[in-house]
Amino acid sequence: MNLADEYRGRRVLITGGLGFLGSNLAHDLVELGADVVILDALLPLYGGNEYNVDGIRDRVTVEIGDVCDKPTVDRLVAGCDHVFHFAAQVSYIDAIDDPWWDMKLHCTALLNVLEACREHAPEAKIVFSSSRMVLGKLDYTPVDTKHPTLPLSLYGAHKLTCEKYCAVYHRTYGLPTVVLRISNPYGPRQQMKHSKYSILGWFMRQAMEGNDITVFGEGAQIRDYVYVDDLVSLFLRAGASDRAVGEVFNAGSGVASRFVDAVEAVVDIVGKGGVIHKPWPEDYERIETGGFVADMSREKDVLGYEPHVGLREGLERMYDFYATRSQHYW
Amino acid sequence: MNLADEYRGRRVLITGGLGFLGSNLAHDLVELGADVVILDALLPLYGGNEYNVDGIRDRVTVEIGDVCDKPTVDRLVAGCDHVFHFAAQVSYIDAIDDPWWDMKLHCTALLNVLEACREHAPEAKIVFSSSRMVLGKLDYTPVDTKHPTLPLSLYGAHKLTCEKYCAVYHRTYGLPTVVLRISNPYGPRQQMKHSKYSILGWFMRQAMEGNDITVFGEGAQIRDYVYVDDLVSLFLRAGASDRAVGEVFNAGSGVASRFVDAVEAVVDIVGKGGVIHKPWPEDYERIETGGFVADMSREKDVLGYEPHVGLREGLERMYDFYATRSQHYW
Repeated sequence: MNLADEYRGRRVLITGGLGFLGSNLAHDLVELGADVVILDALLPLYGGNEYNVDGIRDRVTVEIGDVCDKPTVDRLVAGCDHVFHFAAQVSYIDAIDDPWWDMKLHCTALLNVLEACREHAPEAKIVFSSSRMVLGKLDYTPVDTKHPTLPLSLYGAHKLTCEKYCAVYHRTYGLPTVVLRISNPYGPRQQMKHSKYSILGWFMRQAMEGNDITVFGEGAQIRDYVYVDDLVSLFLRAGASDRAVGEVFNAGSGVASRFVDAVEAVVDIVGKGGVIHKPWPEDYERIETGGFVADMSREKDVLGYEPHVGLREGLERMYDFYATRSQHYW
Repeated sequence: MNLADEYRGRRVLITGGLGFLGSNLAHDLVELGADVVILDALLPLYGGNEYNVDGIRDRVTVEIGDVCDKPTVDRLVAGCDHVFHFAAQVSYIDAIDDPWWDMKLHCTALLNVLEACREHAPEAKIVFSSSRMVLGKLDYTPVDTKHPTLPLSLYGAHKLTCEKYCAVYHRTYGLPTVVLRISNPYGPRQQMKHSKYSILGWFMRQAMEGNDITVFGEGAQIRDYVYVDDLVSLFLRAGASDRAVGEVFNAGSGVASRFVDAVEAVVDIVGKGGVIHKPWPEDYERIETGGFVADMSREKDVLGYEPHVGLREGLERMYDFYATRSQHYW
């Protein structure tokens, strides 16, 4: 698959495009010659950051607006060839505090996008960023997309609702939807303002500020950390492949890493900070899903996905990015 | 299980309690000695009907109000021992026309109920009326509750979201939730104003008015028709059983009937009208799930459920009810 052939001159809407994943995708799409439109509300404490389009600011169209406002979405969707939908509520903790808000930012927003596409751009490929949080407690690993979905959080429940929306609109209206279930992404342009999500980003900031990083328990839980460049390549492939339409894919690295090893790598690379271990607090244990690693074999077969950046290298690149840009991220 | 012992003197909130299922449940609960509170918005074209509480009107508390209004739900939930949640958007066709409305009446409403219970009645048993529409195309029948859930409609997607909410609130906050997936209910107090749902009710009205009933195709599709008295007994058992907490159950008869046989029984019992066959319209075929019959063995084992009313007898009882009450239903 030649991605430049797929995206050159194509109009691409990225909701949440000033955030971590959306902005990294925007950088790659600009390189590929796409006509990129970004919609972002720049909600406080979310990942949206105008600095994230530094370097491509004059080659993208940025609209500061609300994906929950249907007329805005209608106007931006019209004429698009691709829609990458990242705008969402981003913290499972905030979802507990305000379930209706989480519902609105997930469900109202995606319904707006899907209905806008149905009305104004029925051929546009729609790529939805879901989450491994749809799964709940794991029956087995590596996890494929046939695993049962019994989310432990409202955040996961709403991501699952959005996956079902994509399936309904694909089968009812023929919209070309694709769902990608993201594992644990990390890399440049991730928010570092607080610890509610983007945990490796937060830990890197802690290390850079010389603080100790708290690890609950031994930190032996298995995670699938995926470097943002690899993730972006997967989104680009999913958005371009006819074989992806109507499907759900995993979006991870396929590599099992221990949480504590990732944290220790951060401290080692940054050269500051330390690691201290504390017992698990009760409310964390309830939503702990068990060790997670994605089975990425289908994504390799169907989409030609091949992650290139291992955890150590990814964290080094991430540190290189933030080492000179901390003023833009905290 | 002695249901009178379970419900006598208990305060029970029924949302949508002037509708078909809610009002039939209310009648039984009053007989069992419960203190019944009904919340219903009496939305036009929905099933809510003040005549549905005829005979028990002075023994129930009826509040005309909106389950999407959190303060109303807070006030009514406080002090309850049981909450049966029926209030919802009721037509999969209307869900297509206004997905946000369907989302609100399903998701906002149930979040209100669950949050109200969490805050004001954490011990209250919450019984949620889901639908077989959560399933989508069927891989096998009889269908148990382990069947994959890939809804073909937004209505089904939102019912599934609500099921996931029940699971999250049970596991996160310990709320005693139970989910019942209703198949095809019929019987007295069903709305007969239009054909958007309650299909056997609509057909009975057609026959009573001497009209022909349209059956698409041969009408050979298999359905699981459950008489409302049996369904109510299942809801009462689910709401009283500790073994039901946190679980999902089917709510059908376990008996496979051909659609056309049900229609012909209606015409035969009413003694008027006729049956004509027409080809399936395209938009119906897309959401046809294939033959459905519920596997009710687990409900018999765990809840002691035993349906008593066969299709012919149920339709006869239904006709007896409407024969003298049509002025209240159309």
